[in-house]
Formats: sequence, C-alpha cells, structure tokens
Amino acid sequence: MTSARWDCFDMTIEINETHDPSLQSWIESANDPATDFPLQNLPFGVFRRKQGVEPPRVGVAIGDRILDVARAHRYWDLGEAGAACDAPMLNPLMALGAPAWSEVRRALQSLLGTRGLMATAAREHADELLVPQDQAELRLPAQIGDYTDFYASVHHATNVGAMFRPDNPLLPNYKWVPIGYHGRASSIVVSGNPVRRPAGQRKAPDAAEPSFGPSRQLDYELELGAFVGPGNPLGESVPLADAESRIFGVCLVNDWSARDVQAWEYQPLGPFLAKNFATTIGPWVVTLEALAPFRAPVFRRAEGDPAPLPHLFDPSNETQGGLAVTLEVWLRSEAMRAAGTEAVRVSHGSFVDMYWTLAQMLAHHTSNGCNLRPGDLFASGTVSGATADSRGCLLELTRRGKEPLALPGGEQRGFLEDGDEVILAGWAERDGFRRVGLGRCAGRILPTGGAPQPGDGTPATSVRRVES
Amino acid sequence: MTSARWDCFDMTIEINETHDPSLQSWIESANDPATDFPLQNLPFGVFRRKQGVEPPRVGVAIGDRILDVARAHRYWDLGEAGAACDAPMLNPLMALGAPAWSEVRRALQSLLGTRGLMATAAREHADELLVPQDQAELRLPAQIGDYTDFYASVHHATNVGAMFRPDNPLLPNYKWVPIGYHGRASSIVVSGNPVRRPAGQRKAPDAAEPSFGPSRQLDYELELGAFVGPGNPLGESVPLADAESRIFGVCLVNDWSARDVQAWEYQPLGPFLAKNFATTIGPWVVTLEALAPFRAPVFRRAEGDPAPLPHLFDPSNETQGGLAVTLEVWLRSEAMRAAGTEAVRVSHGSFVDMYWTLAQMLAHHTSNGCNLRPGDLFASGTVSGATADSRGCLLELTRRGKEPLALPGGEQRGFLEDGDEVILAGWAERDGFRRVGLGRCAGRILPTGGAPQPGDGTPATSVRRVES
Repeated sequence: MTSARWDCFDMTIEINETHDPSLQSWIESANDPATDFPLQNLPFGVFRRKQGVEPPRVGVAIGDRILDVARAHRYWDLGEAGAACDAPMLNPLMALGAPAWSEVRRALQSLLGTRGLMATAAREHADELLVPQDQAELRLPAQIGDYTDFYASVHHATNVGAMFRPDNPLLPNYKWVPIGYHGRASSIVVSGNPVRRPAGQRKAPDAAEPSFGPSRQLDYELELGAFVGPGNPLGESVPLADAESRIFGVCLVNDWSARDVQAWEYQPLGPFLAKNFATTIGPWVVTLEALAPFRAPVFRRAEGDPAPLPHLFDPSNETQGGLAVTLEVWLRSEAMRAAGTEAVRVSHGSFVDMYWTLAQMLAHHTSNGCNLRPGDLFASGTVSGATADSRGCLLELTRRGKEPLALPGGEQRGFLEDGDEVILAGWAERDGFRRVGLGRCAGRILPTGGAPQPGDGTPATSVRRVES
Repeated sequence: MTSARWDCFDMTIEINETHDPSLQSWIESANDPATDFPLQNLPFGVFRRKQGVEPPRVGVAIGDRILDVARAHRYWDLGEAGAACDAPMLNPLMALGAPAWSEVRRALQSLLGTRGLMATAAREHADELLVPQDQAELRLPAQIGDYTDFYASVHHATNVGAMFRPDNPLLPNYKWVPIGYHGRASSIVVSGNPVRRPAGQRKAPDAAEPSFGPSRQLDYELELGAFVGPGNPLGESVPLADAESRIFGVCLVNDWSARDVQAWEYQPLGPFLAKNFATTIGPWVVTLEALAPFRAPVFRRAEGDPAPLPHLFDPSNETQGGLAVTLEVWLRSEAMRAAGTEAVRVSHGSFVDMYWTLAQMLAHHTSNGCNLRPGDLFASGTVSGATADSRGCLLELTRRGKEPLALPGGEQRGFLEDGDEVILAGWAERDGFRRVGLGRCAGRILPTGGAPQPGDGTPATSVRRVES
C-alpha cells in the first residue's frame, strides 16, 4: 500500500498500485482517456452472450469489452473470488468481503495489463475471454433481497419539501437522521428495460375527489446506489468505522416517481405506488477501491447545523466519507429520436453535495439491529446540489412543471412524456488519475396499458432554456 | 361444489365437501373441537425434525402433528403440488395457483380422514408420515421477496393519528387509498425467535435535541398477513375480481414497532428503523379455501364515506371480501413466568373490522403495474376495532403509555419491557363448521445489546384493568 496526500482536500487516503494512471491494457479501447472502463476501474456486472447458450455469469467491463471472469478462472486461479464469479449474480462475490475483492482486482489487472506472463497468455485467449459489450445482454448485477432508498441531499429535501409542505420544507429530523424508507425489490430492472407509465390515484388540489388514471407527473430521480457486501446478523449493528467494509460498490440508480400519485398517497406512511412501479439501475458496480482516488470530505454543514450523534460520527468519515462522483441526466424524446437529434443533458450534480455519506447511511440502517444481506441495495436519494442546474429530478428542475424545460425541436417538458428516454451517467475524474465511470443507466417510457385519460400531460406556463 | 346460504350475512358463498364438519381424522387430536388444526383446516408450513438429518420441507398441521407432505408424495401421487412440497419453502407450491392448492387439499383430506383406502394405508405409515409438533422446528414458511405492510383499520389509523397528529388524525386520503408502505423482508422471523430491543434516535417533545439509545416505547402490532401465490408481471395489474386467486393464504403477523423512534423519524418518508428491526410471523399459512365458511361482507362504511373508486370496487368483494377471523394478543412478563402465571389476554379484535379487504390491498398494490412474486407477504396493518378492548397495539391500548395495563402480580405496562413475551392467536368459528385456527405467533423481548440508558421504561400515571 502506498498513500498520497492531496492538496485541495487536505487529507490522506489510501491509494495503491492498482490506481497507477500509467497502467495500460492490451485492450486498446481501455486506454482511451474518455472511457468509463480503464484498467483502473474494472467494475463488476452480470452478462450473457447474445448468441450464446451459456447461462449468465459475472463479467468485468474493460474498455468496450467484457471479461468473462468465470472463464478466466478456468485458466488462472483467481481465488475464491474467481470461483464466486461463476454465478448469474454478484451475491456470492459480494459476500466474500473486501480482501477477496481486492485480490481478484489485482489478478484481473495482471490479466488485462501489458506486463507479465499472465497478460501475454490472456491475450492469446482473447476471443474466448472477451465479449464486445454490444454483443452482450447485461442483467441485474445481483439478486436484491431488500432495497432501501435514502433522502441524503439536503438540497433535494429542501426543494421538494417546499413544494409538498410550503410552510415546513425541511423537517426538524433532517439534520439528525439519515432519512430513508424501504423500496420495492421486485420491480428493480437493469438499464435498457422500458418503463411503463403507471396508473394511480391522484387528486388535483382543486378537485373534490381523486381519480384513477395514468400518472400526469412522471419523473426520474438521479441517484447513486450502493450494494451491500458481507451482511450483519439480525440484532447486531455495524459501527460507522466499519461501515465501508460492508459496501461492495456503487451503481447508477433512477428511482422513477409518479409525483401526482406521491402527493396524494404519501401521508402518513411514505411513498408506495408512486415509486414501486419501477426502479432502473446501471449494469456496472464500481468497487469502492476503484473510487479510492476520488474520496472527499463529508458535506460541509451549514453554520448552526448539529454535529452528528456519536453513532453517526467518525473522524475518517468526516475527512473522506464523501465521493467526488459527477452525475448527469440526459433526455431524448421520441421526436428527437425521429429527427436524429442526440440526447441533451438536463442537469449535472456531484455526490459530494450529499448531506450524509454512504457509510453513515449503512451505519444508521443497522443501528437498530436491522440485518443487511449480501446483494441488498441502498440508494442515496436524489442527488441535487445548491445550483439550479444540479437539480436531480424534474419536480425540482421545472418547479413541478411550472417552468418546463425547452428541448431541441421546440418541445417542452414539465414531466416525462411517453417515448422519452432518460439516461443517467456518472464518473469521477481527477488530475493524476484515470477517469473511473459508472457507465449508463437508461430507460424509456411506454404508455400506460389502459386507455389514455383526457387531460393527461402538464400545461406549460413558461420556458427555461436547458444548458447542455 | 355445493354452496350454502347463511342467515346473518345474507350472501351465498362457495363451500364444498372439504368444509363438511362431520369429517373426522384418524389422528385423534384433530377431532378435538378446540384444536386450531382439524381436518377442515390443513394449513401449510415448513418444518424440520429436531432429531432428524433431513432438510426442512413442507408440512401440514393436523391436530398436534405435522404431516410430512413430501414423504406422503412418495407413496401417493399428490400431483404437482405434492412434488412442490419437497422444498424448504412454500414458494414453489404458492406459484402453482388455486386449482393445484385445492387438489392437494382434497388429497390430504383423503389421506388424513377416516374413509377410504388411502386413509387406511396412511395410518399404517403414521410413524413415518407424522411428526409431533413439539418435536419439530418450524421455519419461515416462505422465502419472502418483498414485504408490504398496509394500514387497513380505520380505527387504528384514527387512534394513532390522534396521537401523532392531534389536529389531523385521519388524513384525507384514508378512505380512498388502501394506505401501505414497504417493510423489511430480511428481518422477518418465525414465531419463537426472540426479538432484541432496538436502539435508535428518539426525541422527547420537551427535549432540545434527540438522543440515541434503547427504545423506551417498544410495541407490538397485531396483524394478519397474506402470502402471494401466482404473481403478476411488471407493468400488468391484477383486477380486483381476480385478486383473491393470487392469495395463497394468511398467517399471523406481529409488526414490532419502536414508537419513540417512529415519532421522530417517520416524516416525510414513513416508518423505517422503527419497524425494520424485526417482524414475527406465525408458522402456519391457512389457505383461503379453508377460510371459505368464514367470509364476511366488507366493512360497513360510515355515512358519508366515499364509494371505492372503480378499480377498488367489485360486487363479490362487497358481499364476501371480509374474513370473520378473531385475533387476540396475549402477554406474559418475566415476573409472570417466574411465578408460574399464565399469559393474559390483553385485547381481541376481528378482521371484519378492517376498512379494506385483502383483495383490495392486492389489487391496489398492482394497480400501478407493481409486480408481486410468489412468496411475497403483505400484512394488513394493526387490527383494531371500535371498542377499547379491541385495540391491537399498546400505543392505542395504553394511550401512549398514559393508561398502563395492570398485569397479574401488580406489574404495569405502558410499553413492552425486556423479558415480556407477546403471543398472538387467531381463529375462525361459526355454527355448523369446524373451528379453523392460525396457531400462535410468539416473541420475547431481549435487552438491547448495548448498555441500558438511565430513564428507560415509561412511568405509569394511572391504571386500567385488563380483561382476560
């Protein structure tokens, strides 16, 4: 282990030779400075060859290829982690813990690098070991036992609170408790799956009664998700100082939300049908080790904010619990697709703006003895920053549809229309290191199964230009 | 199929020869009028012989015994349902659907009855086929993918709402929406497991800041749970008229709750750590077919209540969507145990008092396209009636600890103390039919892992006598 001291963050973090930016791969596309998947990343996912008969199994993204880890394990002993990759889900690998993840990461770097005998031999077996990403079907990376969604952006909580509760936007518990709730595991789908517009009960403020029909305020939420590695037994907590050792890695999450349904149903027990119709996650899980160079101090609390209670405070979390990961939302409508217009970026934020860190979320989650299991997923909540262009959902970005986005070709968007495709992207960049990316998380809206209702869609009252 | 018309309910329901009260079993304990498990019940569970080497598998309760269904299937062809019982969970059986459940129910009745060759042969193999319940370890009946908790008692919602929101007890959505939220699947345990008192953040109304420590307001909630049979694909709804065909059966549920944690954390996204530390369910799942004689009309709405929206209305649901199941809570403290005092009944209610039926809950759950999977569990929310002795949790029963219960031996209870055992019971009875019971759902409170905090426990200010 070597360590590096950074100027701007004034902290020491552990980076090691796997982060060396001079490392190159014999797979040329991995050496492209713009790739999300250089040799220094090696995110895990589950894939199946489109033309193949073999069952889905674990792969690692490298440039524009996927390494078939289980097949590589047949030639080279990749340890228990290598054996765990011969599975249609990451759960067995996740259960092994950080030392095993780190060991297989080093072995895969040797295999895919340009130095040593392993790399030479791997190159000879390239056809067998590698699959072009466009010839693979990517699956859900894990069998997700429980899915939890947090609410860790104070900017998002304040913006949304102001719309749902104008007199009481940020509740008194917010700065003490990493607020979270349980989401639906069954309806989590991997990037690329379409999302059907949900029907539901919604009641306009001026309506006497609610009605049932397709949601008129369909939204995305830009989030980062974390997969649990080794779990904790029921009744035992994970101290904050140990919390990161229980996190396998992170992925992109789009927590689709029907805002009209949410507004009507969410009191007193929280969101339910407004969110459980679909959650889309990215196919690639980037390990915390790959993200080590991009650690950041915890969000700087405002003057007068309370210090975290002891179970949510740890010196290391304060100095490097954050992640400097940039997150973006891109949008492409049906009309844009028909006209050959590319997707436009509608917002971009950073995970350093989150009030609570991933470690605080996990420690809080287990502080009552709640057991987490390998493959459980918890998401951060919408990632929004302080600026208008960093608002991570349309509810915030268009102020509940009142200030619609202008799209190329003259269209406007208060909320999502059928045919809209939402694409999330995320990556970390830093001088002296290779870019480490999360890939893409995309989903397109299909119309509700039933007949459309008169009055669907949201009227536009003013226009705001979109930076892209 | 035969059908019977009842006097008091003024409805026709489908009962058949499996409900014939004259049917007797060659297992004497099943003929005891007080048993929960006569030949007319045959609830499913998962068991393992305490002294055995065989893996857990599906069994059916009959009197004080368990029938090993997989072993019976070796001698007699019990169809695909019989084959599905050679599993450590009910999920494969649940996935088959009502015709298969009904078929195996008839076969098991032949096997365990007193008529015919099958019964004679089964009796000869009794030692091999039957396990005394006290020599079996009962397991979670299913692998539960997602757990949903509803809030379907208007009495409970009103009582609790009055305490959490005195100015606004019953929210405007209540009589339109079967309110529910997602709970934690990982921390569901089967009856008999101890429950560790959770620690958490709680803030007294007069305190300037919250603190972290063992919950001082630990509570139970008396609920009925329903297991999903065949699921629905993501994006497709289950109409109310079909909803019951997707319900395999019901069990007892104790949704343990830390009220102090709940009060502080629950806004705006609902209960989280206040409930996800443990949920205890009964080991036996009683099929809807076994409960057919105990169907009841939907809860009689009050004058001025809205009619359900079309997707929550079905004539059959109105006349027989309810279940006349009596539910009870029994309590036994550590001191009572030491003194040899039996548990006392602290409340008793009926599932006919629920505002929404199980079918309405399931139809609502899928109305946005949310997919349910075999083995998913949804619970009703606390079953409380209009009377004081039918309040299904201590929060209601003791008015948040202000009117503690008096226990035998002079103890008082505002909320649960360490060592308290809570036992839920449930059954249906009706003239002309055999009693059909749900068994017991029990859990005892262990102290929090950490050191106790000064001031734990709730002061008593007045005493109310408990009927038992």
